[in-house]
Amino acid sequence: MIKITKYPQPNDWAKLLQRPSIETAKLEKTVADIIQRVKEDGDNALRNYAMHYDGVKLQSLEVPENEIFNAVNEISISLQQAIRVAYNNILAFHSVQNQTEPYVETVSGVMCWRKSIPVQKVGLYIPGGSAPLFSTVLMLGVPAKIAGCSETILCTPCDKNEKVNAAILYAADLCGIKKIYKVGGAQAIAAMAFGTQSINKVYKIFGPGNQFVTCAKQLVQNYGIAIDMPAGPSEVAILADRQANAAFVAADILAQLEHGADSQSILVTDYLPFADEVNTEIEKQISSLPRSELALKAIANSKIIIVMSMEEGMNLINEYAPEHLILAVEDSTEIAQGITNAGSVFLGNYSPESAGDYATGTNHTLPTNGYAKSYSGVSLDSFVKKITFQKLTKAGLSLLSNTIIEMAEAEGLQAHANAVKIRM
Amino acid sequence: MIKITKYPQPNDWAKLLQRPSIETAKLEKTVADIIQRVKEDGDNALRNYAMHYDGVKLQSLEVPENEIFNAVNEISISLQQAIRVAYNNILAFHSVQNQTEPYVETVSGVMCWRKSIPVQKVGLYIPGGSAPLFSTVLMLGVPAKIAGCSETILCTPCDKNEKVNAAILYAADLCGIKKIYKVGGAQAIAAMAFGTQSINKVYKIFGPGNQFVTCAKQLVQNYGIAIDMPAGPSEVAILADRQANAAFVAADILAQLEHGADSQSILVTDYLPFADEVNTEIEKQISSLPRSELALKAIANSKIIIVMSMEEGMNLINEYAPEHLILAVEDSTEIAQGITNAGSVFLGNYSPESAGDYATGTNHTLPTNGYAKSYSGVSLDSFVKKITFQKLTKAGLSLLSNTIIEMAEAEGLQAHANAVKIRM
Repeated sequence: MIKITKYPQPNDWAKLLQRPSIETAKLEKTVADIIQRVKEDGDNALRNYAMHYDGVKLQSLEVPENEIFNAVNEISISLQQAIRVAYNNILAFHSVQNQTEPYVETVSGVMCWRKSIPVQKVGLYIPGGSAPLFSTVLMLGVPAKIAGCSETILCTPCDKNEKVNAAILYAADLCGIKKIYKVGGAQAIAAMAFGTQSINKVYKIFGPGNQFVTCAKQLVQNYGIAIDMPAGPSEVAILADRQANAAFVAADILAQLEHGADSQSILVTDYLPFADEVNTEIEKQISSLPRSELALKAIANSKIIIVMSMEEGMNLINEYAPEHLILAVEDSTEIAQGITNAGSVFLGNYSPESAGDYATGTNHTLPTNGYAKSYSGVSLDSFVKKITFQKLTKAGLSLLSNTIIEMAEAEGLQAHANAVKIRM
Repeated sequence: MIKITKYPQPNDWAKLLQRPSIETAKLEKTVADIIQRVKEDGDNALRNYAMHYDGVKLQSLEVPENEIFNAVNEISISLQQAIRVAYNNILAFHSVQNQTEPYVETVSGVMCWRKSIPVQKVGLYIPGGSAPLFSTVLMLGVPAKIAGCSETILCTPCDKNEKVNAAILYAADLCGIKKIYKVGGAQAIAAMAFGTQSINKVYKIFGPGNQFVTCAKQLVQNYGIAIDMPAGPSEVAILADRQANAAFVAADILAQLEHGADSQSILVTDYLPFADEVNTEIEKQISSLPRSELALKAIANSKIIIVMSMEEGMNLINEYAPEHLILAVEDSTEIAQGITNAGSVFLGNYSPESAGDYATGTNHTLPTNGYAKSYSGVSLDSFVKKITFQKLTKAGLSLLSNTIIEMAEAEGLQAHANAVKIRM
């Protein structure tokens, strides 16, 4: 049963909305050691870690091309179809993100513009472990492909027989990824950040992972490597009114909680009886879940909050800044207008989070842990940088010369002024 | 005299293009202590640091509204005009960055879209010290205004008489910034990250600063605060051919080097005699500079590199990924097509960097230290996050249901599948 809090005061919200704490500080020493070892020993270190942590004696680090090519034969036709539908929707949604801006002549003879240019070398990390996240391959691989990154590599752990999950290989192949390495954990992040004999160094690293992976991504940032975003446990907030369906909402909560014991669900409603209805439904649905043990643990992090009005509910949710937000309300389009902090929003009773996790076309790599206040989810933008350009004619510079000289001299930067004066 | 390197081999480039190293690790303990103190003691800690570091006994932390309003009277008409010209150009260039994307119906009944929403609370840091960077107030304040951030605060150190530079106040006033605090250094970053009695906590912190400020920005990231980008010393690369003007190029190099002893200029040319011509010009121009001492030190970090061809020069520059790039070449538009890594690019002989530093309208807060490989400069994008939305009809979900269920089950996430099944 999820704990119910009735009509909390706004100054109690912060405490109420606290997330399960994540302690990466403790791991830092271990992870820093792994990074250092990979930096020094390259492939050798990767082989040793594979043996040490996973008991795998790697013959080769790279997945052979024919293994990628043949992965399709190991997947059912129906799963192939599903992956292709998802691929196409993600492709459609991310393709429109490729907007070009007009050139701006700010002053006659002063032409300014921005141009999107792909990050040349990107590295994707896909965890192995309990769930083979081939859907995440699509979420990262599709925008990388649209952006036109010239080198996209992928690291993911293999099983004891040195095999990578076939659906991961198939999804990667769809995205045109040719370099796949059987490396997992913090050592994979280190390999992509610094390069080894087999693995090329990249400029930006994407993808989810356990606490070791998250910590490694944080640490390599100090060496000039960009990362997609800081990561934390997955979470959902649901805003529900009287017309919401308790069975649907319970199913959405459970979908969130099966991610892991540190997942969190927050249900906010102005309809008091709904709280018990949802708890009853959760009890009904949870027993049949294969991952019910994880979900049961995550229930302890979760909350049902009763508010005075939908408006108060919205304010509370904006304060929480959820990764996922489901609006199980009558007027979902209207209510959506008031959202200021969230990663991805699902409107109405027929937009479950799992639709966006897999197949609507939106990205499922989203800001957690309150980062939705300042970060966007992964998109095409994450795989490009925008370079500004300016071209001035002599006449254009002349029109701006007084402005530049005046400002530069007032800032005490005489050489800045001189660079204009000498041209006039 | 800047050291000349002739025809280096590509595998020597990395070493040749090394940047002056920055050591923030040494400061970390000091800065972490400052952050902790501000977190615990709030305003009190800020007052103590102002006394300790700057010898200022602060009466109030906030600049009174009438002081902001009256700042205009302390600035010459010509500087007011200059600041307004720059303001208008920055406004024009950043306004077109507000692009809306079309809604995408990825599948019939499955509507997906993204919406730009301002980061609600942002904090701008403007250093005091040797140069009062009111131009940076515009570069951060204008996009914050266009984005519509609901709370924009600004921290900047004051002088011994508790006065903030009038041009900084005037520029802030133009941008509609009402909350300005007389706080500098790492303690200002801590105050904006955690809030004090006087200063509200923000979600994202922008702006340049010394090594303490940079280190503080790095550290507060671990507490969920976003920052504009990692910072390093300023730098310029110049690609010049036979038609370039040695006096212009020397002036551009000096404009870069007057920033600080750790600044760096890289001149790349395929025309051997140009190297000596530029060095001669630098010698001629440097003596009259008020900041010549800094520039002389920075010359030691700088390089002139002779390459075999423009194409090789471009490759070398893309490898370096300069913050600023001046294309002092005949075919600047053509050459610009080949740029893959740079912050801001200046085309032709009449586009000095200082034009973009102040007045063309492009932003001067740019990725340094090689970060141009993966980061963009500050833009309107930096002040918004993009939230994704999706609304499915029952029929739309039905069209996607097989796809979602198939993928969720293959990933071992049964509750994700159930959230769809229960709705069908």
